[in-house]
Amino acid sequence: MKPYKEMGREELLQEQKLLEAKYEEMKAKGLKLDMSRGKPAKAQLDLANGMMDVLNSDSDMKSEAGVDCRNYGVMDGIPEARRLLADMSEVPEKNILIYGNSSLNVMFDTVARAMSMGVCGHTPWAQQGKIKFLCPVPGYDRHFGITEFFGIEMINVPLLKTGPDMDIVEKLVSEDPQIKGIWCVPKYSNPTGISYSDETVRRFAHLKPAAPDFRIFWDNAYSIHHLYDEDQDVILELLTECQKAGTEDMVYKFISTSKVSFPGSGIAAMAASEANLADARKAMFYQTIGHDKLNQLRHVRFFKDMDGVREHMRKHAAILRPKFETVLDILEQELGGLEIGSWVKPKGGYFISFDSMEGCAKKIVAKAKEAGVVMTGAGATFPYGKDPEDRNIRIAPSFPTPEELAEAAKIFVLCVKLASVEKLLEQ
Amino acid sequence: MKPYKEMGREELLQEQKLLEAKYEEMKAKGLKLDMSRGKPAKAQLDLANGMMDVLNSDSDMKSEAGVDCRNYGVMDGIPEARRLLADMSEVPEKNILIYGNSSLNVMFDTVARAMSMGVCGHTPWAQQGKIKFLCPVPGYDRHFGITEFFGIEMINVPLLKTGPDMDIVEKLVSEDPQIKGIWCVPKYSNPTGISYSDETVRRFAHLKPAAPDFRIFWDNAYSIHHLYDEDQDVILELLTECQKAGTEDMVYKFISTSKVSFPGSGIAAMAASEANLADARKAMFYQTIGHDKLNQLRHVRFFKDMDGVREHMRKHAAILRPKFETVLDILEQELGGLEIGSWVKPKGGYFISFDSMEGCAKKIVAKAKEAGVVMTGAGATFPYGKDPEDRNIRIAPSFPTPEELAEAAKIFVLCVKLASVEKLLEQ
Repeated sequence: MKPYKEMGREELLQEQKLLEAKYEEMKAKGLKLDMSRGKPAKAQLDLANGMMDVLNSDSDMKSEAGVDCRNYGVMDGIPEARRLLADMSEVPEKNILIYGNSSLNVMFDTVARAMSMGVCGHTPWAQQGKIKFLCPVPGYDRHFGITEFFGIEMINVPLLKTGPDMDIVEKLVSEDPQIKGIWCVPKYSNPTGISYSDETVRRFAHLKPAAPDFRIFWDNAYSIHHLYDEDQDVILELLTECQKAGTEDMVYKFISTSKVSFPGSGIAAMAASEANLADARKAMFYQTIGHDKLNQLRHVRFFKDMDGVREHMRKHAAILRPKFETVLDILEQELGGLEIGSWVKPKGGYFISFDSMEGCAKKIVAKAKEAGVVMTGAGATFPYGKDPEDRNIRIAPSFPTPEELAEAAKIFVLCVKLASVEKLLEQ
Repeated sequence: MKPYKEMGREELLQEQKLLEAKYEEMKAKGLKLDMSRGKPAKAQLDLANGMMDVLNSDSDMKSEAGVDCRNYGVMDGIPEARRLLADMSEVPEKNILIYGNSSLNVMFDTVARAMSMGVCGHTPWAQQGKIKFLCPVPGYDRHFGITEFFGIEMINVPLLKTGPDMDIVEKLVSEDPQIKGIWCVPKYSNPTGISYSDETVRRFAHLKPAAPDFRIFWDNAYSIHHLYDEDQDVILELLTECQKAGTEDMVYKFISTSKVSFPGSGIAAMAASEANLADARKAMFYQTIGHDKLNQLRHVRFFKDMDGVREHMRKHAAILRPKFETVLDILEQELGGLEIGSWVKPKGGYFISFDSMEGCAKKIVAKAKEAGVVMTGAGATFPYGKDPEDRNIRIAPSFPTPEELAEAAKIFVLCVKLASVEKLLEQ
């Protein structure tokens, strides 16, 4: 098909009529489909059901260090869980602390601690006037939610195919001591699916922030969440690069097994320099008597080691891959050549990022909703929910069944076409 | 035996000689005993091992509302868990939120939130200058740790046999708007074991704080932790009393199953007015995508209901009761009539509180340590670790075996005698 923008007014009106008829047809089906959140599907959850069997009433509940995992204590996490999550984070065991069930919670608490108590002995952020975070966009709405909650000003930085625009990051960070952090999803980024280039990671390691209490929030949410066996992204390990550059205290890495075992019943961890971990432990000492060690034990006994985890992730990929391909195929078939949208074909992660024509994203999401397809709210991938060009839409293909997904994707492309025609007719 | 203070110098010196000989004998045994923390014993943990069997790979993992507990979501907790913990807290289901594995963590986060974001729309505590908490003493060291961590000034209030001295509490709270909270363990108090009288609870409900953002931190840590079947303390339910008095927004209640199922792998909850819960939910929305629902399900399927919980607590009591009695018997046998210490015989909870002669507690704990018995640090039951009279020692009889406990208690009383004789000889 020829690009919409090359169509004349009459042709566009005719196309609109056809599309509207199809749309009414779709609406009449009364569907209820959800492509809004990166939730694993039932089939993926079933993969980890065996984890419910590894501990039973006859099990030895002791960690390898001989500690009874049923009782209080062991703030850092049991050694075997630290080793597993250290391997997953590609850092030595001494650089990791195990937390509770959610890495988002660890990030929230890390910002909360910096706000009220300061970072490693520096003045609390809350007492330093208006502080700021850099936010590569499009990005993860829940990251932006945390900084918004604490009243931290957010500054958009374009996310390129190589990662955040490092020219801008370097300039801003080195000039403004009020900039205290940056949110990053370095691998299979949420939502664009890109992975940071080696040069980007090295430039991060060599940042010279004006603020001594500046920290990189490196959310390794999809570090092992590949879609393909052969064609996988590999990124440089940031803590190691920072050590080489003498900036190892500049980074907090976060990881969890939420999309490996069970969302909500996984284990989360922070990887960082020993100085940063000592700082985190100080608060943790007052915050808790220890995290859930039985769940740590359950994870280690089920996965055994990184090979076990990788094998498990292959099973996730086998379920996710066809879903991604279904959506990508429909996007290509229905929108290819129309020049009314662009998207990235990700090699991992949980999302497909779609950019519509300027000023169409909200309309598309609203139309999809009317036809029974819930998408992530347009704008959600930007701080304050404001996409300045109203273009970006995050597609989450994981949760629906393949059949539902095909239906939902067809409705989505129809809404894209409709909104685009309307836009062109306005001009 | 006659009271030490009625002994003459010669008699005391002779007693000291005998005691020192015994002490050296004890030391020579090279024991390693621990009466320092309120940790359940292995036999108590074994009681809940069946909880490891209620979920296996074939189980239905759906909550009664049909939600798959393995996936994200359900911030408030699954309905059946809310009901169980609401029953445990003696409040309606609408007044409870389920959290993670630790009520201490919920208390920490509640103070953290009040510090940085304020309570129900009021100015953040951190922006109100020096704020203060009332601390009934002796009390729980980890409560005092939280307020100390956040730089909140702590004011001692005597804990009487009926609860905190309410004349003082009422006066201070009504006069000083900088007083923002009070730490309470209303039932089987840590460490004294007393339970608040009905009058005390009613006076709490009728407090007229000068600060509109004053909150009572009501830590129901031992609400169902009775030692006896017949002779149990019953306290008035504070939220109900507050509702009657029109002060229902004044209280946060905390509870967990740490000493019911497994410490570290239990579930925790906050009970409060709907306004307070709405305020808590606002932060929780940014902090997490949900707590561990599989563990909630495990608890509900294992305990079923409050009858199941009560039955389970009877088994705990059967293990704990003889331990408490062992210590109390030895205290009575060895110290009765000497007038060098006093203690409360608790009907529940995890501690026996011992008051030595003034200025002896530190010495007693140090001597016990030298003989191989670790006690909670003297002073730990007071804010800043400072017991102004150096009297109070918390005895935690739960963790050692009965045999170890008898040994430890004998060493303890010997140390009390020795320190008291030394004190009297100084005078």
